[in-house]
Amino acid sequence: MSTVDPTTGTCPVPLVDTEKVMLGHGSGGQLSAELLRDVLAPALGAAGAVGVAEDAAVLDVDGVDLVLSTDSFVVSPLFFPGGDIGALAVHGTVNDLAMMGAVPVALALAYVIEEGFPVADLRRVTASVGAAAAAAGVPVVTGDTKVVGRGAADGIFVTTTGIGRRLARARVSAAAARPADVVLLSGPIGAHGMTVLTARESLGFETEIASDTRPLHRLVAAMVGAAGPAIHAMRDPTRGGVASALNEIAAASGVGIEVDEHAVPVPARVAAACELLGLDPLHVANEGCLVAITAPEAAEPVLAVMRARPEGRQAVRLGEVVSEHAGRVLMRTLLGGRRVVDMMVGEQLPRIC
Amino acid sequence: MSTVDPTTGTCPVPLVDTEKVMLGHGSGGQLSAELLRDVLAPALGAAGAVGVAEDAAVLDVDGVDLVLSTDSFVVSPLFFPGGDIGALAVHGTVNDLAMMGAVPVALALAYVIEEGFPVADLRRVTASVGAAAAAAGVPVVTGDTKVVGRGAADGIFVTTTGIGRRLARARVSAAAARPADVVLLSGPIGAHGMTVLTARESLGFETEIASDTRPLHRLVAAMVGAAGPAIHAMRDPTRGGVASALNEIAAASGVGIEVDEHAVPVPARVAAACELLGLDPLHVANEGCLVAITAPEAAEPVLAVMRARPEGRQAVRLGEVVSEHAGRVLMRTLLGGRRVVDMMVGEQLPRIC
Repeated sequence: MSTVDPTTGTCPVPLVDTEKVMLGHGSGGQLSAELLRDVLAPALGAAGAVGVAEDAAVLDVDGVDLVLSTDSFVVSPLFFPGGDIGALAVHGTVNDLAMMGAVPVALALAYVIEEGFPVADLRRVTASVGAAAAAAGVPVVTGDTKVVGRGAADGIFVTTTGIGRRLARARVSAAAARPADVVLLSGPIGAHGMTVLTARESLGFETEIASDTRPLHRLVAAMVGAAGPAIHAMRDPTRGGVASALNEIAAASGVGIEVDEHAVPVPARVAAACELLGLDPLHVANEGCLVAITAPEAAEPVLAVMRARPEGRQAVRLGEVVSEHAGRVLMRTLLGGRRVVDMMVGEQLPRIC
Repeated sequence: MSTVDPTTGTCPVPLVDTEKVMLGHGSGGQLSAELLRDVLAPALGAAGAVGVAEDAAVLDVDGVDLVLSTDSFVVSPLFFPGGDIGALAVHGTVNDLAMMGAVPVALALAYVIEEGFPVADLRRVTASVGAAAAAAGVPVVTGDTKVVGRGAADGIFVTTTGIGRRLARARVSAAAARPADVVLLSGPIGAHGMTVLTARESLGFETEIASDTRPLHRLVAAMVGAAGPAIHAMRDPTRGGVASALNEIAAASGVGIEVDEHAVPVPARVAAACELLGLDPLHVANEGCLVAITAPEAAEPVLAVMRARPEGRQAVRLGEVVSEHAGRVLMRTLLGGRRVVDMMVGEQLPRIC
């Protein structure tokens, strides 16, 4: 029996053991959240009580504030305009640390490789990991390689785990957004998701979009340097897009969020591709931008330091946090109406990262 | 062109880009070492200079000695007598930390799941992760789940990454074995590898062996408590078995190692299965024992504390470190002869962990 959730108005169906895992369970959207809540967290039990639900965890080890984050990358194709699985694996983990207000200290790298995978491609992926790590200023200190038989994996899967050290003045948490806070976005959205999608041969059309994959820890350090604890929350809107990032913050903080449609920066080519495919740009994955929720008085100073860096040159004020419609994100449309910005339910773009 | 390596007498063939990755590159044996040396380390470049070759890395973060280790688990079948992929993923990473003289502080957990994987199996694997982590006293603090399409993975792959804190008196390193040191082994070998192998349906015979998978950090803490820096090196002989573990230590330390055949504890059922299949028990993977190299005067005290714990109840003295035949491991056979104990070259048992 399932019941209607009074906050979201949705009707979650509990996962039962006769069911199968679906692609949507890896989407970063609502099905992912349900899998975590209904299957993974209960099964982990006490061992997972600390907060396996977060993208990254803060640990106090002998008085040092460490942050730990892990991500598996299964993007297809492996190489696409603007990046590849190696760069993505470094940036994704560096950015998960950064969203907790941390700078990366070290990375661990684990490969699962399909038998028959070209050594040349392995070299290329690894060189990309090395170049991205060097550019981010973080060493790869340990690794692991497993090989499985033909057909038991698709080329290569890369898991990167990062340790970071939290910046002294960082106090970010998805649960810390408050009414009257300002929602900032560091730059245009949708490029990564649409690039990977169009790079898949089967799609049959081409655009000149390139992935926005890049590390964001220096941008975050500048923001924290400018405003410290006045930055209340940060998220990089990867799988599930800006919509999921804002919904997660709204739910965790018990607040509403309102976004102005005219403020959402969607590049023309992304907008065109989304329209053709019937996708909402707010659901498309990004790998090089962030959403920040700041105290009202910090918004302009933070925007100024963001715009002073290449990663944040096109930063915008997206909207505000409100006390109404707690847990929900609304869009103030160009026509003066309002619509709900939902989390993605299923899987829009499988294997986007 | 390839040249004969004067230390090992082998003739390594450099990997070229036209080649394909083979199962043996994930064996933990010689091909794995070559892949790391010829492809991965050069491609990583400066970012990997710190030591991606180790199973775990020691990091000094603000004066705290941390250890980081990562491993992907691809074992097939997922469930086998004595354990499953979930328990293995926890124990494997906890033990890699322990082999650096560290106790685990936190684990990160990443899944790559094939679409259609039964939710019941996912629950079972995750409950096993949770139970193993709880038993080891280490929380799972963060995680990630990706789902790939049918046929793009085989059920589930699990990557666990651990942070540990190094015990104050631990000074272990694979490069620290010295002539006259004693080689200790914590218990019988071969059970894990032969269990997984016989659990595969295709093999057509059954034995009553169960995997030895278990955490070893408490055993290590007891050993370090007893002898501190007099424990020079430790390894858990997983992929590649005891032979690879000893060869790695001999090579890294520039010493020879001699092992007494009569001292090698091979359970009768493991020995029988190995004979049937033509396998050397020294090459078979273990998940619950360790090899330790200690100063001569520390050997008996360390053996005593090992035997006082369940994980080390059957600990034995296996042999000695010598100054002759540097880089090589020799077995003093039951018949009074000597034979070289090589690293495994190819892949004996794919997907053993």
